[in-house]
Amino acid sequence: MAKKRYYFDYAATTPLDPKVLSVMLPYLKNKFGNPSNLYELGHQASQAVTQATKTIANILGCRPDEFVYTGSATEADNLAILGTARANKDKGNRIIISQVEHKGILAVCDILEKEGFEIVKLPVQKNGLVDLKRLEKELDEKTILVSITSADSETGTIQPIAEISKLIENFRKAHPPTPSPREGARDRSLSSIPFPPGEGLRGGAFLPYFHTDASQTAGYLDIKVDKLGVDLMILSAHKIYGPKGIGGLYVRRGTKLNPIIYGGGQGRLRSGTENVPAIVGFAEALRLSEKNKRTEIMRLKKLRDALEKGIFKSISKVVLNGHAIKRLPNFLNISILDIEGEAMLLYLDKLGIMVGTGSACNSQSLTPSTVLTALGNPYEYVHGSIRFSLGKENSMEDVKYVLKHFPDVVKKLRAISPLQLKMNQTDLISNPKAFIGNQTPHFLRKSRLGKSK
Amino acid sequence: MAKKRYYFDYAATTPLDPKVLSVMLPYLKNKFGNPSNLYELGHQASQAVTQATKTIANILGCRPDEFVYTGSATEADNLAILGTARANKDKGNRIIISQVEHKGILAVCDILEKEGFEIVKLPVQKNGLVDLKRLEKELDEKTILVSITSADSETGTIQPIAEISKLIENFRKAHPPTPSPREGARDRSLSSIPFPPGEGLRGGAFLPYFHTDASQTAGYLDIKVDKLGVDLMILSAHKIYGPKGIGGLYVRRGTKLNPIIYGGGQGRLRSGTENVPAIVGFAEALRLSEKNKRTEIMRLKKLRDALEKGIFKSISKVVLNGHAIKRLPNFLNISILDIEGEAMLLYLDKLGIMVGTGSACNSQSLTPSTVLTALGNPYEYVHGSIRFSLGKENSMEDVKYVLKHFPDVVKKLRAISPLQLKMNQTDLISNPKAFIGNQTPHFLRKSRLGKSK
Repeated sequence: MAKKRYYFDYAATTPLDPKVLSVMLPYLKNKFGNPSNLYELGHQASQAVTQATKTIANILGCRPDEFVYTGSATEADNLAILGTARANKDKGNRIIISQVEHKGILAVCDILEKEGFEIVKLPVQKNGLVDLKRLEKELDEKTILVSITSADSETGTIQPIAEISKLIENFRKAHPPTPSPREGARDRSLSSIPFPPGEGLRGGAFLPYFHTDASQTAGYLDIKVDKLGVDLMILSAHKIYGPKGIGGLYVRRGTKLNPIIYGGGQGRLRSGTENVPAIVGFAEALRLSEKNKRTEIMRLKKLRDALEKGIFKSISKVVLNGHAIKRLPNFLNISILDIEGEAMLLYLDKLGIMVGTGSACNSQSLTPSTVLTALGNPYEYVHGSIRFSLGKENSMEDVKYVLKHFPDVVKKLRAISPLQLKMNQTDLISNPKAFIGNQTPHFLRKSRLGKSK
Repeated sequence: MAKKRYYFDYAATTPLDPKVLSVMLPYLKNKFGNPSNLYELGHQASQAVTQATKTIANILGCRPDEFVYTGSATEADNLAILGTARANKDKGNRIIISQVEHKGILAVCDILEKEGFEIVKLPVQKNGLVDLKRLEKELDEKTILVSITSADSETGTIQPIAEISKLIENFRKAHPPTPSPREGARDRSLSSIPFPPGEGLRGGAFLPYFHTDASQTAGYLDIKVDKLGVDLMILSAHKIYGPKGIGGLYVRRGTKLNPIIYGGGQGRLRSGTENVPAIVGFAEALRLSEKNKRTEIMRLKKLRDALEKGIFKSISKVVLNGHAIKRLPNFLNISILDIEGEAMLLYLDKLGIMVGTGSACNSQSLTPSTVLTALGNPYEYVHGSIRFSLGKENSMEDVKYVLKHFPDVVKKLRAISPLQLKMNQTDLISNPKAFIGNQTPHFLRKSRLGKSK
């Protein structure tokens, strides 16, 4: 591909960092052993897995045996949600999630609903944040799991995970487990990962468990599990310049959950031959991501803000989706009125500009984004949404290129559009309320918003 | 590693073929798109997946939509067994497997037993073959699934898959599905993979389904699904010089099964971002494996036979495990009396010779191999077992190297062994019957077997 590529879809997937590939290559070549084997070649492989897991555990601030590798973040989500639900159904059947969870989690919860679980979907506010008061009200003694994404994959709105975990912790303290005559209180946190002798319940997990999907945030926010106060947390390697085909689940010791894949490994949460090159690559990707976090946040925020400012200045009738401030530094999700997101995407693609429309996982279906709908947006907004998610290879030159060409794309598409919505219009749209109080970037408040180009 | 490596554990895992790596590399570098995305980079990725799946489907003689990628062969086994069992529990609760299935399948069946399924474990004969008469007897109208490995991963004994499928087909014909008033007969094969309009039930699957694990046989035997007559068949990329972290399941159209990993992909049997580099590598590995099959079979059989003959000639008190003839051309599993397999393995490792002891998946546990135990061997034999499994990089020089050094290893270990078993000894061992009629390689029958070195 000779043409320069302007990739703005890092939330969908990221290129493998060449440094990550270079640590993987020996395991794709000479060091191909199966970690289960007892001879040197196997030992080499199992040592590599051990070392990688230590690296990851150090970054998360957990113990190596609290981290489980999976074949994808989706599998990790399944393990976290199906695993804890099915293992704790004798303790309760209520699961609280947010409306802006990843499609994977929503799909899993649909299955659990059929299995007799009650799924409470917490609505989010117009700015994308989960309503904590509502969460407090919904927590009850039947609740076994709360799952709130760290930041949704469409708007990048950051949820107050540490606050939520405190709220859950308060609930736990106010409702200590009633010891049943036969089991005793300890059983409430009976574990698939047993405590080593003498460790007791220090730092153990209690119901309701708290799970978060940190796929999008791992590169940009704090992911120390104790600071966040989570019992379960998933990571995805291919969102942080690591390989595809590997995800991971942090499982706080004491958390009781069933495997979803059974096999040879006795007591293991996931069976199957370890994917050594991918595990090694995952750890290196996370290490590099931690190392570069501070500078990347500053750099990408600057680029994103320039992009945002430029778009709002040069294009009329644009609405920001998600939270204006509490948002990942690399996310910009906007609705451009009167145009279909898919059309923009394809026109931009011709210019070498790659963006998402809603979640990547949604983009081959035509159902409107569940996240954007949850914000209370009318369909007309949701369909006109596109997502810029920036990353390592983006520069100010890329931003300028977009700002040079994007307004023309909008102009062309609007010229052939049958729609002619006005900002704040309340008639002839599917959800008039959505226009009231819609989000405006802070630097544009009380300014020229709505002025036509 | 400057020392030359004598790798004889291809059944545990194989090195990635450099040709496979080279087709993967573009997808590990520049072509990193997420196949779900609509722009060119995503399209490129989804085209690669489509092409890879066509390649695999051509080799299996199936339709591309009948092949599902998983994160490992173990996951594919889980999907096949858990998936069909749970989706068909209204039709019956009986599952028939062989005693020599892979540990993954045994573990899954333990779980299903707890869920109320009846698991029938068909015993195998002393030569490792499943007793077909017994299978015929066990089939009944409650049986929803039969799972027989194509060749077990310890002895490489080849099961008569096509014969078994005919037997099951005869049972199906003799017991046509009773149409329930509301559902009709067609429902018995209601599918997760719908029939395209007009295709009807041609070639569709009926209960009881027949599943086979072809992980070990893909490189050496016919894997055309219609010739084998299977409804479900799993493959493992890393056993055929492909990448780790990917497996696949053939699912005959019309087979009803539940996913084990749920997510965004509507109607898909496995959700999650596709592991594009691994998928591309898997297809290339299978293509190369098909291409080289005939010559590799001849070459490896020659090497294996030389190794076998040499060992039996130079070492006393050796027993062949599994079938002498109906055996994969690269397998040699033997029990060396009076010695522990682990000890041999470690001594051989020092010489750069890598072998397995029982299944690789077992080798970090001390429980004796389930396959070798199923053959009726006493513990003393099972513990003294080692497995040579040959592959691409082995040469006659490697075989000569083993034959030069292995007898000395045995000598050394026997010198310090407290055991002093005799061939055909019937007292002081855990299972005297096992010595009666034990397997002898055909070229050694009525010859010098048992003569001490």
